Amino acid sequence: MPKISSKGKNMPESPIRKLVPYAEQAKKNGTKVYHLNIGQPDIKTPEVALNAVKNADIKVLEYARSEGSETYREKLTSYYKKHNISVSAQDIIVTTGGSEALLFTLGSICDAGDEVIIPEPFYANYNGFSTANGIKVIPIISSINDDFALPPIEDFEKLITPKTKAILICNPGNPTGYLYSEEEINQLKTLVLKHDIFLISDEVYREFVYDGVKHNSIMTVEGLENNAVIIDSVSKRYSMCGARIGCIVSKNKDLIQTTLKFAQARLSPPTYALIASEAALETTDTYFIEVNEEYLKRRNTLIQELKKIPNVKVSVPKGAFYCIVELPVKDADHFAQWMLEKFEDKGETVMVAPASGFYSTPGSGKNQIRIAYVLNRESLVRAVELIGLALKKYQA
Amino acid sequence: MPKISSKGKNMPESPIRKLVPYAEQAKKNGTKVYHLNIGQPDIKTPEVALNAVKNADIKVLEYARSEGSETYREKLTSYYKKHNISVSAQDIIVTTGGSEALLFTLGSICDAGDEVIIPEPFYANYNGFSTANGIKVIPIISSINDDFALPPIEDFEKLITPKTKAILICNPGNPTGYLYSEEEINQLKTLVLKHDIFLISDEVYREFVYDGVKHNSIMTVEGLENNAVIIDSVSKRYSMCGARIGCIVSKNKDLIQTTLKFAQARLSPPTYALIASEAALETTDTYFIEVNEEYLKRRNTLIQELKKIPNVKVSVPKGAFYCIVELPVKDADHFAQWMLEKFEDKGETVMVAPASGFYSTPGSGKNQIRIAYVLNRESLVRAVELIGLALKKYQA
Ligand SMILES: Cc1ncc(COP(=O)(O)O)c(C=O)c1O
Ligand SMILES: Cc1ncc(COP(=O)(O)O)c(C=O)c1O
Repeated sequence: MPKISSKGKNMPESPIRKLVPYAEQAKKNGTKVYHLNIGQPDIKTPEVALNAVKNADIKVLEYARSEGSETYREKLTSYYKKHNISVSAQDIIVTTGGSEALLFTLGSICDAGDEVIIPEPFYANYNGFSTANGIKVIPIISSINDDFALPPIEDFEKLITPKTKAILICNPGNPTGYLYSEEEINQLKTLVLKHDIFLISDEVYREFVYDGVKHNSIMTVEGLENNAVIIDSVSKRYSMCGARIGCIVSKNKDLIQTTLKFAQARLSPPTYALIASEAALETTDTYFIEVNEEYLKRRNTLIQELKKIPNVKVSVPKGAFYCIVELPVKDADHFAQWMLEKFEDKGETVMVAPASGFYSTPGSGKNQIRIAYVLNRESLVRAVELIGLALKKYQA
Repeated sequence: MPKISSKGKNMPESPIRKLVPYAEQAKKNGTKVYHLNIGQPDIKTPEVALNAVKNADIKVLEYARSEGSETYREKLTSYYKKHNISVSAQDIIVTTGGSEALLFTLGSICDAGDEVIIPEPFYANYNGFSTANGIKVIPIISSINDDFALPPIEDFEKLITPKTKAILICNPGNPTGYLYSEEEINQLKTLVLKHDIFLISDEVYREFVYDGVKHNSIMTVEGLENNAVIIDSVSKRYSMCGARIGCIVSKNKDLIQTTLKFAQARLSPPTYALIASEAALETTDTYFIEVNEEYLKRRNTLIQELKKIPNVKVSVPKGAFYCIVELPVKDADHFAQWMLEKFEDKGETVMVAPASGFYSTPGSGKNQIRIAYVLNRESLVRAVELIGLALKKYQA
């Protein structure tokens, strides 16, 4: 029997997806499952995007340019300008989702054995993309007790070694909903300039910011041009996760040239999705305002309902549509699986993502789950009620 | 200035794409460019596939399952059955193109520093996916003088070291058009079983086989179940390269489980493309018969026209839609670029792929180009005429 690589063995299972078979079994048994596990919004995709695909006159579904068409990248620059980010088409490589943007960026910056510092908890698949590239994730723990604020910058500096090639932040944060302040971004700037490393900022939730707080993109910071890389995606912005279009944005020409080689090797981003994504740029401001209002209400509902459950701790997210919830259980992995396998109330149960997969420090987050508030409020109320009922039964 | 990784520096430029800027400049100058450089057929995509997307009633463009939906994978098993390949849905991981299938397979089998033996010349992006995974390509040269037949199996065996994890073949071959005989496949079988390594077969051109010769898939060979991995794609089969759907097929459960982890990290293949690909399975046999007849005529036209040019050598391809052509020039890279920059006849020129990028042995293929016969016969005749005229002028 030929052998799998060590890398393959080390690839983490997705904490978001590994319970899927249990959920499917539950559904087969007739149980309704509320999905709070995955960042798959129920928000309608803008019709302008869907219609563009419907009306596209395609005879031959051809490869697109590896880096995305000139026109799409040109139009993207206008989108960024609206967000005070001044870039040109040459600073953009279109990718197959933010996922591929992360894979190519990490591969372009790091060799096997190199290190990337990431505030923890972090988007679980950073582990996967790092493992795929042979990169060591160096976590720096942010705590639910500090509402996941950036750890003191001195703590970052202690972790920097000659192998450190980048700091990777997610802003707004998945799974924490944390939003970095201007001061925090400036501290990171000083640090990466001093050590001549990259600052990668995953800003796929840029639009989802609440309570009137401002989003601070690293691309608006002067002096950071050669060090800043943005990871972006249409997935959440237009609720078109299935499109699979994202991009890498950087003014560092070496980086762009290098990621382009990765992009050329895989030939092309998906053509239908490019049509949808280009058209989606016409989405009205009203759409975003309405969507944000909806998420804000959902967040408020979620937090309010969670607070009704005894011994549950939650940090109010300021952006994105996730939050980390600390539960009165020892092993949230087990609890989450148990909810799918053994629990139901009136034929219903809930699927959540155990938070341990969002940490790389072993043993961390064992009593936490991540909730994505991507369902309507009525469903959220019921889903949280189910978690409360499940906890009671589980603890008994 | 923060630094790019060595891996990033080592990533090869795509020989198919690196001349694109010169082609675009030529077009800007008003020159018509015949594209023989890329495997982008002009054949119409089956309407059943295009219509499925047009008629899809999508409200939210959602993520698909990381490994592809159960229904699509079930239907794929029927497709394979028609080709005498007996597999179940559990043996299939749907990927974003054959490209991603290659990336995930190589990453699942090889660690950095491991080796994969590949008959040369080979599909250029095998270099890119190998570099991205830190894998060393060990080429075994097949020669135009032997019509690119499999080199003697003893020569393969000499190259096997403890670091060898797989042999990768492309059948039918890009860029050679070579089709492996049953005997050759059996020889490879004996070899990989003896050394307990994987045999990866890129069969994305399975349908494109001429002169009544039979295609021999490695998945039809008994006893090879644990060692065989197929790389597949809808790109060429249905002339829908822009869809970006492919798959990994293997009965080796460890391999499938491992590639699934890579698939989960990137979340989802493109949803629109999945709709198109599932519908494309309804494509009639007539479509394939007509397309094959067309390619056969093109191949014959191409070869016939090429033979008119003095001092040009070509091996008649038995499958796929490429051929390697040896030219009376020292540096085909230079010649190809020159045709775009300096040559035109009646406002027209040609873009070909220099063959050096299809070799990993330095200096090999320097006087060769790859031609993709993806244009109609009239265009092919003119394109080859242009190559002949260009050669005359270039040599003068
Ligand atoms: C923080 C973050 N980055 C990147 C991604 C990747 O998304 P996609 O590949 O759909 O663009 C996600 C998806 O959930 C995410 O939450
Ligand atoms: C031999 C071979 N394998 C794989 C691919 C990848 O194709 P895709 O990613 O479009 O499926 C190609 C594309 O030209 C190819 O020629």
